Amino acid sequence: KMKLNIALLAGDGIGPEVIDQAVKVCDAIAKKYHHDINWKPALTGAAAIDAVGEPYPDETHEICANADAVLFGAIGHPRFDNDPSAKVRPEQGLLKMRQKLGLFANVRPTFTFPSLIDKSPLKRDRIEGTDLIILRELTGGIYFGERGRKDDGNTAYDTMTYKRFEIERLAKKGFDMAMKRSKKLCCVDKANVLESSRLWRETVQGMEKDYPEVEVTYEFIDAVAMRLIQWPKGYDVIITANLFGDILTDEASVIAGSMGLMPSSSVGSKVSLYEPIHGSYPQAAGKDIANPLATVLSAAMLFEDMNMTEEAEEIRRVVNKSLAEGYVTEDLADGGKSYKTSEVGDWLASNI
Amino acid sequence: KMKLNIALLAGDGIGPEVIDQAVKVCDAIAKKYHHDINWKPALTGAAAIDAVGEPYPDETHEICANADAVLFGAIGHPRFDNDPSAKVRPEQGLLKMRQKLGLFANVRPTFTFPSLIDKSPLKRDRIEGTDLIILRELTGGIYFGERGRKDDGNTAYDTMTYKRFEIERLAKKGFDMAMKRSKKLCCVDKANVLESSRLWRETVQGMEKDYPEVEVTYEFIDAVAMRLIQWPKGYDVIITANLFGDILTDEASVIAGSMGLMPSSSVGSKVSLYEPIHGSYPQAAGKDIANPLATVLSAAMLFEDMNMTEEAEEIRRVVNKSLAEGYVTEDLADGGKSYKTSEVGDWLASNI
Ligand SMILES: CC(C)[C@H](C(=O)O)[C@@H](O)C(=O)O
Ligand SMILES: CC(C)[C@H](C(=O)O)[C@@H](O)C(=O)O
Repeated sequence: KMKLNIALLAGDGIGPEVIDQAVKVCDAIAKKYHHDINWKPALTGAAAIDAVGEPYPDETHEICANADAVLFGAIGHPRFDNDPSAKVRPEQGLLKMRQKLGLFANVRPTFTFPSLIDKSPLKRDRIEGTDLIILRELTGGIYFGERGRKDDGNTAYDTMTYKRFEIERLAKKGFDMAMKRSKKLCCVDKANVLESSRLWRETVQGMEKDYPEVEVTYEFIDAVAMRLIQWPKGYDVIITANLFGDILTDEASVIAGSMGLMPSSSVGSKVSLYEPIHGSYPQAAGKDIANPLATVLSAAMLFEDMNMTEEAEEIRRVVNKSLAEGYVTEDLADGGKSYKTSEVGDWLASNI
Repeated sequence: KMKLNIALLAGDGIGPEVIDQAVKVCDAIAKKYHHDINWKPALTGAAAIDAVGEPYPDETHEICANADAVLFGAIGHPRFDNDPSAKVRPEQGLLKMRQKLGLFANVRPTFTFPSLIDKSPLKRDRIEGTDLIILRELTGGIYFGERGRKDDGNTAYDTMTYKRFEIERLAKKGFDMAMKRSKKLCCVDKANVLESSRLWRETVQGMEKDYPEVEVTYEFIDAVAMRLIQWPKGYDVIITANLFGDILTDEASVIAGSMGLMPSSSVGSKVSLYEPIHGSYPQAAGKDIANPLATVLSAAMLFEDMNMTEEAEEIRRVVNKSLAEGYVTEDLADGGKSYKTSEVGDWLASNI
């Protein structure tokens, strides 16, 4: 019997809807396995800006920092995207949260679902059996470097900065993961142009001797953007910088056929955070049509990391069951019968 | 009857082999249409480093700057890639060449070949009829910003800088192209994080009023990395920054099923340059197995830009004929009969 305090950050757009379903599923798990989950809801994103003028309020940070884990929906709102002059943006909250919680590694597994493999835009033989993990650096790089304007606003700049220790701690996670898997690690960078990429390469090369069993390769981001689609099975663990990881992880989601399925965790030295890789999808907000599975599978990753393996497996089992039986939202229904977000959540919970 | 001076930069790896075939094809065109092509070979890349210690020697620049066009192979050599301490790199030559020749826009069309559509890792219905152009900014951004090390080499940084005029001149080309096509322009950036992207968005938004017929959309690079694979037919003209364009153009090449087919041009205020989008592919160098079609089709773009439309069409016709008749290199042969690089070149030339 475990007692878990989980911070619950629903966020914007479809965030609250998908989070609701994950809560139902976790509560069903808690009931079945006699755990006690104490949900701690907190504001973030555009919702927090509207309420308190800040996308990641201190109060929210306190709740997250003191929780055993954070379950996160999505943030972002279109009214900020096309307004270059907006001073406070929902995404700043996300970045501040990552930084203040020290979530330096974003872990995004990419795999296929047997029952959904034909939904992928990619041919079956290219993707069947794909099982790779992208480890994206999450608290450094161009996301956190100095940026600004010069020349009366006519010049804008952003700085991609990496320190050796930032690369080392991310790479260490990558090597450790590779050791538990196929012992293949690929460092993705742009070392033929960028100095920060050359520091990545140099640092990872220096660590190779500590992991003599791991086969390390170095590839350029442009080549990987291509090869990841051509032959995803060629990859096992990929480590990469923040911006490159942002691009590659979204790209990798097409392999599974749907962003609506892919979970992620963000880990650091303290608490870890679990979130679907999709965004706030504002067009669908409030319509009860969003696919909750990525968030539900993120909760499975949470249990997994808490060494509650059976609980994690139970969630994956019920998700696979819903896919196999076609109890899915419209994005997966192929024009056939589909169910509401909330109906899928209820179904999953009642099948646990 | 035209008299053309074309600078010929074979470069490294398979560069010389594929360039040779393009020369054969162009010479056959010149003969058929009674033109006079004066080839001006010049050194570049690792080949130039070995010869004169410089990847883009002044002499090469003189030849390019005074030519009517530049035909370029590929540069890059693996002995530099894994040596973070190398002071002179072949790629610097490429970047210096782009900058000194003022080649601020890289034009990369993405289309499918009817006879090759099943070679793509993507399903036929997703890609059939794809016809998009990525316009990549080529002389600015993080490729040319200040970079270096600090803290005894333990911190490395690169700067992504954009000036309004750089964005404007690239966007203008994008708007003009869109006007000649489906009047759809997509600006790809990361404006939810980067200040330079916000300047892109602001600048392009400011130009919309001059092109009231063009429908402009703004999308994030991570989303486009996904959607480009999911539904390439959703795009017409894409404009984007140097680094994002590097990634997206290589990624887009999987749509056609092979990098070995995709041509590109780099245009500026003075001379233009034509090159295949593939790299120097060192593993294949000297083996007479590389696919020369991307370079041959780049020569077709060259004629097109010189308003020699018939000549360009003739090259495309003969390339399509070679594909239809299976007179192809091994990468396209699907285990069937294949031909050498030089044989394909000879065949193309003799069919003109
Ligand atoms: C919303 C945005 C700032 C964010 C990012 O770029 O990191 C998102 O794309 C993600 O990947 O979590
Ligand atoms: C070789 C490299 C520097 C170059 C680039 O990144 O621009 C290449 O990838 C390209 O796209 O032409």
